[in-house]
Amino acid sequence: MVHGMIDINKSIEALDWNKEPRGLYEPIEYTLASGGKRLRPTLALIAAKVIVNGGLLNGDVEEHVLPAALALEVFHNFTLLHDDVMDRAEVRRGRPTVHVKWNDNTAILSGDQMLIEAYKLLSDVPADKLPQVLKMFNDMATGICEGQQYDIDFEHMSHVSIDEYMKMIELKTSVLLAYAMKIGGYIAGANDAQLEALYQFGLHIGLAFQIQDDILDVYGDPKTFGKAIGGDICCNKKTFLLLTAMETADAESKAELLQWLLETERNEEKIAAVTKIYDRLGVRDAGEAEMERHTSIALEQLDKLPQNEATETLRELAEKLTTRKS
Amino acid sequence: MVHGMIDINKSIEALDWNKEPRGLYEPIEYTLASGGKRLRPTLALIAAKVIVNGGLLNGDVEEHVLPAALALEVFHNFTLLHDDVMDRAEVRRGRPTVHVKWNDNTAILSGDQMLIEAYKLLSDVPADKLPQVLKMFNDMATGICEGQQYDIDFEHMSHVSIDEYMKMIELKTSVLLAYAMKIGGYIAGANDAQLEALYQFGLHIGLAFQIQDDILDVYGDPKTFGKAIGGDICCNKKTFLLLTAMETADAESKAELLQWLLETERNEEKIAAVTKIYDRLGVRDAGEAEMERHTSIALEQLDKLPQNEATETLRELAEKLTTRKS
Repeated sequence: MVHGMIDINKSIEALDWNKEPRGLYEPIEYTLASGGKRLRPTLALIAAKVIVNGGLLNGDVEEHVLPAALALEVFHNFTLLHDDVMDRAEVRRGRPTVHVKWNDNTAILSGDQMLIEAYKLLSDVPADKLPQVLKMFNDMATGICEGQQYDIDFEHMSHVSIDEYMKMIELKTSVLLAYAMKIGGYIAGANDAQLEALYQFGLHIGLAFQIQDDILDVYGDPKTFGKAIGGDICCNKKTFLLLTAMETADAESKAELLQWLLETERNEEKIAAVTKIYDRLGVRDAGEAEMERHTSIALEQLDKLPQNEATETLRELAEKLTTRKS
Repeated sequence: MVHGMIDINKSIEALDWNKEPRGLYEPIEYTLASGGKRLRPTLALIAAKVIVNGGLLNGDVEEHVLPAALALEVFHNFTLLHDDVMDRAEVRRGRPTVHVKWNDNTAILSGDQMLIEAYKLLSDVPADKLPQVLKMFNDMATGICEGQQYDIDFEHMSHVSIDEYMKMIELKTSVLLAYAMKIGGYIAGANDAQLEALYQFGLHIGLAFQIQDDILDVYGDPKTFGKAIGGDICCNKKTFLLLTAMETADAESKAELLQWLLETERNEEKIAAVTKIYDRLGVRDAGEAEMERHTSIALEQLDKLPQNEATETLRELAEKLTTRKS
């Protein structure tokens, strides 16, 4: 990590949720205390460092970016909270989800308040930067909701193209990373070309990250992955691997795959059989190639930015994200 | 209404929801097309008129206030959408609620997007006013969520005091009217004393309005009220009337009232019996006195403001709200 950087975990812990009514604020505290990688605020802070490193603003820039960085993290956790209600997910980061620990109404209302809390944090962005940051944040938030809606729509569609899938994950996952970079850079005074490079970096590591997630769900090491292997296969989740298999399979493999998609009981057998079809069609290689393509595009963006310790950190981060095992 | 005022209904109709994915935006369009009094944006626009009427800014002020006025209306409709999910309400303004017409997940996600859309509208507030308007809007939104949580909490509490009840309706209903006034006035350039008067006017007409609602639910004319009479009595809703009855009743009336609260079947009998207890205890008079007290406080605020056509409109509005029959 970059020398002298704000400890984002401490800043999140310092947020005060000891307010009334407890029924509203306790679930927010619970959600934010459950950890996670804090990737989004970290990206915002590093992006700012890339722009100002060595410059005059260096001392203050993190203080200026921090409110937006925290807003991004609170917003991200809000999306998880509401997504978990919609997906009926029972566990998140090893703990019961809010709608399980409390109830659906609590999850809805505390989630709403978390979204408002994100905007409260955002209101501390330096006044001269606020109008643009608010617009960027709103565009980001809109993208996430649109992505979630496409994801829901896809569940009921018999055919989804790889292009449609990539558009969905771009909205649902990547725009948040892209705007974290762009907002951090903007507050630090980046010019338009730099803002575009920061945005594209975030966007493409996001895409690589999501495809990696799809691959790990099938080919991950159960010891390090943290979730059961094959979860996506069991529930016919439309992933990069499944959609690539559907688009590239010969008639025979396609028929076999479709047959397994109708199976709702024999999960172990289904995982083994579908994985075997994936192996035969080489979809893992296709996924890794696509992931590497996006990582490369991300890394190319860094060449357009000032070269310093922070840029190096982004380079390492991009490489680490796509060789991760969990 | 004030001469030459923007047609708020037309401005709401002009908002563009013809966007993809339809599953996200259609419920927003449906919700906003269902009408309502448009009270909040109207208050914001009138408050601005009060401040600038006759002044130099007169021509432009409505254009400057409009984004915030629309944000308030979109926000208000967002709260109705999510409240209807939490309350399992099936009908709103004579039409099926979103979670009935679509489903719970749609209501959650489209509601989230509506909240974001409110902030999108807000981002068009003149840049020099934006930091303060965003803070006011966030405080307002926080108040609403806190009020909704208290309302939920009250359902499970055997004792709620009138003070607690008033605090709850202040948050759940009144702060939105209060901040509509304050935000409209602030954008129009009101000074601190004027802002406080505008805020207090909105707050107290909100309180009067809610108590009037409680009274109409029992004593309204079924022909004009639009809802079934006695709905609050049937479900033991803690209203100003019930809480006043509990606080002022002699031992015998209190026992009789508590007995009826345990009744979950014979609704017609229950409504008749509880109304009779209310009549005996004079809680309607107590409610009307409290309502008139708040209306008076609201009207007193107007004396602290510039006197013009818009101030007169507020005076008429306050009087109309508390003599309404529906």
